[in-house]
Amino acid sequence: MRAVDLIRRKRDSGELTREEIEQLIAAYTKGDVPDYQMSAWLMAVVLNGMTRPEIAALTEAMLHSGQVLDFSDLPGRKVDKHSTGGVGDKPSLVIAPIVAAGGLKVPMISGRGLGHSGGTLDKLESIPGFNVNLSLADFRRVLATCGCALIGQTAEIAPADKKIYALRDVTGTVESPALICASIMSKKLAEGIDALVLDVKTGSGAFMKKIEDAANLAELLVETGKRMGKKVVALLTDMNQPLGRKAGNAMEVVESIDVLSGAGPADLRELCLELAAWMFYLGERVTTLDEGKKLSADLIASGQAREKFREIVGLQGGDVGVIDDPHRLARAKQTLDIPSSADGFIATIQCEQLGVAGVVLGGGREKKDDAIDPAVGLEFHKRIGDAVARGEPLCTLHYNAEGRLEEAKRLVQTAYLIRPEKPRDIPPLIHRVIGAQC
Amino acid sequence: MRAVDLIRRKRDSGELTREEIEQLIAAYTKGDVPDYQMSAWLMAVVLNGMTRPEIAALTEAMLHSGQVLDFSDLPGRKVDKHSTGGVGDKPSLVIAPIVAAGGLKVPMISGRGLGHSGGTLDKLESIPGFNVNLSLADFRRVLATCGCALIGQTAEIAPADKKIYALRDVTGTVESPALICASIMSKKLAEGIDALVLDVKTGSGAFMKKIEDAANLAELLVETGKRMGKKVVALLTDMNQPLGRKAGNAMEVVESIDVLSGAGPADLRELCLELAAWMFYLGERVTTLDEGKKLSADLIASGQAREKFREIVGLQGGDVGVIDDPHRLARAKQTLDIPSSADGFIATIQCEQLGVAGVVLGGGREKKDDAIDPAVGLEFHKRIGDAVARGEPLCTLHYNAEGRLEEAKRLVQTAYLIRPEKPRDIPPLIHRVIGAQC
Repeated sequence: MRAVDLIRRKRDSGELTREEIEQLIAAYTKGDVPDYQMSAWLMAVVLNGMTRPEIAALTEAMLHSGQVLDFSDLPGRKVDKHSTGGVGDKPSLVIAPIVAAGGLKVPMISGRGLGHSGGTLDKLESIPGFNVNLSLADFRRVLATCGCALIGQTAEIAPADKKIYALRDVTGTVESPALICASIMSKKLAEGIDALVLDVKTGSGAFMKKIEDAANLAELLVETGKRMGKKVVALLTDMNQPLGRKAGNAMEVVESIDVLSGAGPADLRELCLELAAWMFYLGERVTTLDEGKKLSADLIASGQAREKFREIVGLQGGDVGVIDDPHRLARAKQTLDIPSSADGFIATIQCEQLGVAGVVLGGGREKKDDAIDPAVGLEFHKRIGDAVARGEPLCTLHYNAEGRLEEAKRLVQTAYLIRPEKPRDIPPLIHRVIGAQC
Repeated sequence: MRAVDLIRRKRDSGELTREEIEQLIAAYTKGDVPDYQMSAWLMAVVLNGMTRPEIAALTEAMLHSGQVLDFSDLPGRKVDKHSTGGVGDKPSLVIAPIVAAGGLKVPMISGRGLGHSGGTLDKLESIPGFNVNLSLADFRRVLATCGCALIGQTAEIAPADKKIYALRDVTGTVESPALICASIMSKKLAEGIDALVLDVKTGSGAFMKKIEDAANLAELLVETGKRMGKKVVALLTDMNQPLGRKAGNAMEVVESIDVLSGAGPADLRELCLELAAWMFYLGERVTTLDEGKKLSADLIASGQAREKFREIVGLQGGDVGVIDDPHRLARAKQTLDIPSSADGFIATIQCEQLGVAGVVLGGGREKKDDAIDPAVGLEFHKRIGDAVARGEPLCTLHYNAEGRLEEAKRLVQTAYLIRPEKPRDIPPLIHRVIGAQC
């Protein structure tokens, strides 16, 4: 294998064989293929795409660059969920305990905030003491003990993905369905799961703004997972407005505990019940989706899901006191209401701007190693279609530093479009389910 | 300037400003932009192209990354020729002395063999003692003394091109008209010339197989040169068969001396007269092309061109004895005739294969630092349209090592297509002249 020949082939829209892809990824992971060759190849992939067999081969090559976990000795099906990310996107914190309380195993490897979107690890770390950096041995121990463990990618898991992801980030090669698919699936399949529910977001606050792009990615993810013998389904869900009422690391933990306690905003609760139901269904804990939704609702109503979350927090070193007293979490010192400039109805929301406002307040990272402030965030008072009076708050900023407050304010103010008439189209929570025939 | 933003812009088919291109090239040359970012950007350029203003900006940025030579204190216009390369492509060795003998200055910076095509520096180095690595001070001294000097790219000349070219070679980003144009023109414009004649090859032995691709590159080169205030013309010449009768480093020196001595094959002599005439015309030594051709022919007939070559060889440390006694050059120990397999006429020649056969015999490089054998090469007996009898030699291989002889033989045998009828279309020597209205 000469790397330059594989680069040239992809540049000329040719197809690589499984063996060639395996050799390329293995050589890059070892350091035998330098970054400058890999980045040229990645750009050719971004611009010319990959075939389905190439994507499958790439996913497997990245998966097998590290350890593939095996929890087959632990009782119960292993299921997980992955979201492509958005604003206020916190279901993992709710459904992981629900599904574990329902008897399945949830070995969840998550990521950090990326661009305008939040990350499960950052949210969990707003719980004092919570350790997301468990060794694989501790990951297994926590999983075996309580049915769920929530950690970040370790050095043993898909190291090829880790190395390639860092390179993509600085070479303008993030935006490729093929590369996104291989990155997501290589990590998720390394978890040793039987089934995976994908939450592919679309809309103004998602990475895929257009529904067709999101649908294509969803199909790619489902097909790739199925090729590798997993049960996979993808929910194409709406991200034209924030999910729930809160965005910000500690604020999202509070809202997640609200849902686990039987309260919380309707949209967030509804999506969590749907996702958990699919996990129960694919994990063969139930035989219909309705049964799965009912089981999930029951586990909330009985307090079992909330107790499971307490158990997880405790086993991962976190302060379990926050479950009953969310005020123990970091809270911002200041708030600022952003009022509506007109009477009317919320017509559209530039949801990505709201995510960027959260980053500007310090809740996310602009550079990889930026520190984040877990306390800051946004509280949303209005959803698309809601009536609003001039001067009524659309959103409340929770902040600690004044430095970039004006920038955040401007981002939020210009994110909402107010129209005199009630909009005809209110985006549905779930657009479509892909791969449901499994 | 953030390199990743410029990569993303080009990936999305956007245009970069002159300042952005200047900053990118300067930062890369300094080492502030790493290879892996530059290679991703180069691949985006290969696949999405560059606008004319971008190409001009890139050429100038690469030109000004190093010294731009200034020979304005030396009398006479400074002119040069550049060829995109082919098999048996040796006019530089003939026309540089002709044009210098005619009173113009020829400060020629050339390259080495690349892929299947030969390189002027390798040919010159087959003359014992000939030094192509002159310092810039010696380059000027030889030029001032005899009107011509022939060297390789130095560290002072377009270092950005040198660095980018090495990267392109290993990242599959050679084949881009924009990058080829910037690479050629940044080096040629650094020579401090007033005018440039481009010999853009097209056909089965050229890098640009299709005439439209070659014409596009020629137009790009001409426009870029003119934008920068130079007189430039491009001859679109045929490379569907070797130029002259010989390919191989020492063998081509012999054939060049033949032409300088008033002999040599007709096609080679004719192209040399055309190219030299254009150099005289652009260099304002003559007022018509016909006058330029006559002057060139006279300089050969009078022996002045041949004497000029002797002078250059002597000033650059070479053995001037080879001019009168070409047998002093290295000669291969063995020859092998490749016979025709049928009666008929030469219909087409896969000319690149003949060039590769020369590389296989040891006359070119497969890797950058391979040593080459100056003695080996090919002697061609038949041109397109020639009648041939079964068993009559098409070509003679001159070789020293048997190692890869079979491979070379097979390449040559399969390069010639013999048909019963005489082909209707014999490729012309010169297809078109581009930029002639200058």
